Amino acid sequence: MSEGAAAKPAKVTVDAGELRSLVAGIFAARGASVADAAAVADALVWANLRGVDSHGVSRVPRYLELFDKGESVPDAVVTVERPRAAIAIVDAHAAPGPVAMNRAADEAIAGARECGIGWASVRGTVHTGAIGYYVSRIAGARMAAVGVVAGMPNMAYIGARGAAVATSPLAVAVPAGKHELVLLDMATAVMALGRIAQLKAAGKELPPGVALTAEGEPTTDPALAKVPTPVGGAKGAGLSLVFEMLASGLAANPIVASYHSGSAEGRRHRQNGFLLAIDVAAFLPFGEFIASIDETVEAIKSLPPAADTTEILVPGERGRRTARDRAAAGIPLGQKVWRELAGIAAKLDVPVPAAVPASA
Amino acid sequence: MSEGAAAKPAKVTVDAGELRSLVAGIFAARGASVADAAAVADALVWANLRGVDSHGVSRVPRYLELFDKGESVPDAVVTVERPRAAIAIVDAHAAPGPVAMNRAADEAIAGARECGIGWASVRGTVHTGAIGYYVSRIAGARMAAVGVVAGMPNMAYIGARGAAVATSPLAVAVPAGKHELVLLDMATAVMALGRIAQLKAAGKELPPGVALTAEGEPTTDPALAKVPTPVGGAKGAGLSLVFEMLASGLAANPIVASYHSGSAEGRRHRQNGFLLAIDVAAFLPFGEFIASIDETVEAIKSLPPAADTTEILVPGERGRRTARDRAAAGIPLGQKVWRELAGIAAKLDVPVPAAVPASA
Repeated sequence: MSEGAAAKPAKVTVDAGELRSLVAGIFAARGASVADAAAVADALVWANLRGVDSHGVSRVPRYLELFDKGESVPDAVVTVERPRAAIAIVDAHAAPGPVAMNRAADEAIAGARECGIGWASVRGTVHTGAIGYYVSRIAGARMAAVGVVAGMPNMAYIGARGAAVATSPLAVAVPAGKHELVLLDMATAVMALGRIAQLKAAGKELPPGVALTAEGEPTTDPALAKVPTPVGGAKGAGLSLVFEMLASGLAANPIVASYHSGSAEGRRHRQNGFLLAIDVAAFLPFGEFIASIDETVEAIKSLPPAADTTEILVPGERGRRTARDRAAAGIPLGQKVWRELAGIAAKLDVPVPAAVPASA
Repeated sequence: MSEGAAAKPAKVTVDAGELRSLVAGIFAARGASVADAAAVADALVWANLRGVDSHGVSRVPRYLELFDKGESVPDAVVTVERPRAAIAIVDAHAAPGPVAMNRAADEAIAGARECGIGWASVRGTVHTGAIGYYVSRIAGARMAAVGVVAGMPNMAYIGARGAAVATSPLAVAVPAGKHELVLLDMATAVMALGRIAQLKAAGKELPPGVALTAEGEPTTDPALAKVPTPVGGAKGAGLSLVFEMLASGLAANPIVASYHSGSAEGRRHRQNGFLLAIDVAAFLPFGEFIASIDETVEAIKSLPPAADTTEILVPGERGRRTARDRAAAGIPLGQKVWRELAGIAAKLDVPVPAAVPASA
């Protein structure tokens, strides 16, 4: 992963709290309530803290573009129906993803408190960011959680040419004791779009199996690579398709069918999703559960390592360590991302914090 | 896939209904109630009908072996607790998988009828077979469904040597209209264990990426291949691990931690699982939902096909076609499987139906 590191432009480092204030200031200046602006900022900076920079503050300009086009509404008022005790339908009315998804997390938790499990469908939001954030919030309420988001088609489907389904992610959070939280957060594509874009920009050959040409044939040529491939072929493609059916179908807001119908409406950016909260204490004492999760984590981490492996990791472990480091040392941002953010803030009269040139 | 087909021993064909009676007769003769024996037979023959022969009647001898060892109990009485309105905990008391999982499906449906969604955890069953069967049952109640089973470690985990986690499957069923049912049923391994065993038995080279050596290194040598690899590397391994945590952790019956503890109890075969039922009509009118699922299926099937693709399929489509064919023409079984079944039946005084030599 260190190829070309020396040639990379220098980064700056920004304190996480100050970065949060900056982003919240931008969203508030664009019309979001103070609470909603803070919610978006917290979700984006959380991704940067954990090292998922593709889902962090680099997305701010894209939200503003969606506001400009009217595809997202900064002061949208999210509405909630609860047709039965354990389920809620959260209509985002085009509110930014973190605003709608946080509300869904709260509703899922409320349903689970009452019924043992709670489900919240989200209809018609935009960019939800790193969905590990929302399942982690639910885990903070001593619950296990599952989350899925369905988005615009940008990934291959087995046997089809071009973008067919979305790289729709799945996240699962399981609260632990000593190990805090097991957090799986995965796209249904082999390789993240951001990483493919990096390799393409650098003109580097792609690893085999990560992308197809416009004709639907496998390629490692960055110039010919048009659509990322689903993880495990039919498995990832099938997962993405059923996620669309559960997330968009139950929210009565189909994305895939609408997109391929060729209508202008079908190409309008939007996302649907769902969150499931599971109240652990309804099944067994919470302390017993987290002790057994710790034992399972220890069992995996204590296995004999394969050659070239120094440590066996469980899902979420690397991100938690990165978050600890970055909370202390600040968040490294590329010069381009930083200049764009600072420029936006300056135009909106939002104070710009200090950015320190990164030593590494 | 046709390599060596000419050298394969001939198969016989057995009528699906007669095969069901045969298997039910065997389980009843071993002490299962008439209803439980029929439940096991229906689940196994369903897998054969759909072409998933590795999870069909070839498993009968293994159930009987588990009865002999006391690891499964043919007349176990499944018990159910319902600690909250939307959740049930189904204790199998070592009943065969189909008996426990059918009960869980009924409980999940009951929870969903009342609360919008229903969850049933299953504790301590054995071989559940093809879990698509149980989510299909839930879909028959006009609900969407998700199912997971966690089993004994038999798959690699990233960075570890040897069997670390299970090939734990995930199944998702979404009811449709014209397209009947979208049914995803996938293991968390790249290649099914049964297929690897076939290639090993034939001494054939494995495709790259499907198995590791005992030292945890990738191999295509069938003689060195010891453990199957997880689909998508860290993704499949992570999925399997969180499935264990949700299925076994919430059922208070950890398998992975117990297995690696080295105790004799930890090596005793068992499985846990969960089923989630989602009452579609609580979200939107059922007719609207299935119409939108049909539109999504049509959108995918109408995409321009990639080279060498004549038809784009959605999850479950191939299995449904095979089931239609086999319901009419009978189920093809290998001579070895058939002789074993017929031999067991004869010993137990269960009538053996006619088996017709397969013409193909």
